[in-house]
Amino acid sequence: MDEFELVARYFDHPQAGRGQVTLGIGDDGAVLAHTPGTESVVVTDTLVCGTHFHKEQPAASIGHRALAVNLSDIAAMGASAEWATLNLTLPSLDEYWVEQFAAALLALAGRYDVALVGGDTTRGPLSVTMTVGGRVSKGAALRRNGAQPGDGIYVSGFLGGAAAALAQGNACSEDALLEALWYPQPRLALGSALVGVAHSAIDISDGLLSDLGHVLQASAKLGADIDATRIPLYPQAERDLGHRRALELALGGGDDYELCFTVPMARRGSISVLEEKLSLALTCIGEVTSSGVCHVRQNGRILTELVPGYRHAWSG
Amino acid sequence: MDEFELVARYFDHPQAGRGQVTLGIGDDGAVLAHTPGTESVVVTDTLVCGTHFHKEQPAASIGHRALAVNLSDIAAMGASAEWATLNLTLPSLDEYWVEQFAAALLALAGRYDVALVGGDTTRGPLSVTMTVGGRVSKGAALRRNGAQPGDGIYVSGFLGGAAAALAQGNACSEDALLEALWYPQPRLALGSALVGVAHSAIDISDGLLSDLGHVLQASAKLGADIDATRIPLYPQAERDLGHRRALELALGGGDDYELCFTVPMARRGSISVLEEKLSLALTCIGEVTSSGVCHVRQNGRILTELVPGYRHAWSG
Repeated sequence: MDEFELVARYFDHPQAGRGQVTLGIGDDGAVLAHTPGTESVVVTDTLVCGTHFHKEQPAASIGHRALAVNLSDIAAMGASAEWATLNLTLPSLDEYWVEQFAAALLALAGRYDVALVGGDTTRGPLSVTMTVGGRVSKGAALRRNGAQPGDGIYVSGFLGGAAAALAQGNACSEDALLEALWYPQPRLALGSALVGVAHSAIDISDGLLSDLGHVLQASAKLGADIDATRIPLYPQAERDLGHRRALELALGGGDDYELCFTVPMARRGSISVLEEKLSLALTCIGEVTSSGVCHVRQNGRILTELVPGYRHAWSG
Repeated sequence: MDEFELVARYFDHPQAGRGQVTLGIGDDGAVLAHTPGTESVVVTDTLVCGTHFHKEQPAASIGHRALAVNLSDIAAMGASAEWATLNLTLPSLDEYWVEQFAAALLALAGRYDVALVGGDTTRGPLSVTMTVGGRVSKGAALRRNGAQPGDGIYVSGFLGGAAAALAQGNACSEDALLEALWYPQPRLALGSALVGVAHSAIDISDGLLSDLGHVLQASAKLGADIDATRIPLYPQAERDLGHRRALELALGGGDDYELCFTVPMARRGSISVLEEKLSLALTCIGEVTSSGVCHVRQNGRILTELVPGYRHAWSG
């Protein structure tokens, strides 16, 4: 089988989300129509075997995750996803692997009306890059730099699940934690609903404190007061690893792909409404301050203190 | 140095081509404005160390080539390039390498008003994925499927140079051949000028016969008559490898990143005008036929005969 047959067999299926696609897979490039009154949003992420996933991880989870982490970025911009390209580098042609990978990727794409419009298959060490485009009303994109003192700091869902699964390695037998690691759910409905409500948003990929740090740093170097007792932890992680470690992983573990966003006092009521409408936990974990420092407190004691702009080491 | 400092230091420079960019590097995604009356074109290509380039190849040539091969696809669509994202996977942080890579990439981006708006740096086996977006007037994109019997088949520039350099490996001392391999020049001005002139276009990446085969296959399974004596060869390749081998590499070698396009009889005159205007060789090498077969003739003898849709093996 050559690369053209590979693409045709597993990826070039009739798909949802073709509305904007003038020309899809099969030419030198894809051609996409615009929606008046909108701007385009473009995001991209690479997953490398050995760095971002293990060789033994199910192919379906890698296909899902490659798209999900990009959709999470689209959500953090308050945008809707429209199209995706896939660059797949494979050490050899394992048809079963490609089939599982493609089916999971296309299932997620179908759920959010995303058309796979192009890509590239190459031979080499296993890695996956996806680039996803979307649209947002002109001027409406959620940015990192809009947080203001007094904003409530919210997170969606539960944190630290993926990191808890990783920390346990092969010993992890908790479906909920493996699910969080392998099949993160992009918060696209939440992202769109936060347009006009949130002052700022980011998706949690590097870890809550690190990503919140980016928001605070971008927003005139503000600070934050976080109440550790309000951080939504996975009960399975607390049970397996203890409360302290589960909290550490929720603060710094990463790979959550939940949204962290800040909301002015006057609009906090609409978050409760949204929580019910989306059946998604939306928890206020603290407040933006003008202190320039991010404090995490537990029962009045300062657990940790960070200067925003805290950065994870260069390690992908 | 972490990945944020790496990006800031080498890639987040004031750049040309910012006109369309509402929000560039530094948030979850980039935000891009639309030009009324246009559609978007998106292309993507991955270069893997060991498959598409050698470790010893200058970093500058890898940076240049990663963008150039994508711009070549944009040119083949008749579009103008607007933005690019870069996914760079590095085994370790070699600052000098990154500096050389980034400088060459940004120099080429600047030449064609392309803004680098985002990307991802990860640790792993060396590879580079770029995704490039552009615009083309609504309905004007050059496609593969428009060729018609009687069209003249044209190629830009000279063919087989990159393949001749590769074939000689370290023994290659010809600057013109190494230049063709390391620093291909995307034919963006030509691509734009062919809108409304050419019936079809493709860029030559897999090799002339293979890529022309895609055009013929997409265009109702047409055929072609190619005159081998008209194929524009690199004199350096003929001198180093002999005429026969230089011709073989021009027909099937690949990595040319020239355009192959078909033009109806009535418009062939405008190609001569274009050739002079662009100072770029544009050579008619044959004609589209309704035979369903691609013949390459040399002095009346059939050199080779291919059924269009001939495909290169799955090997990146």
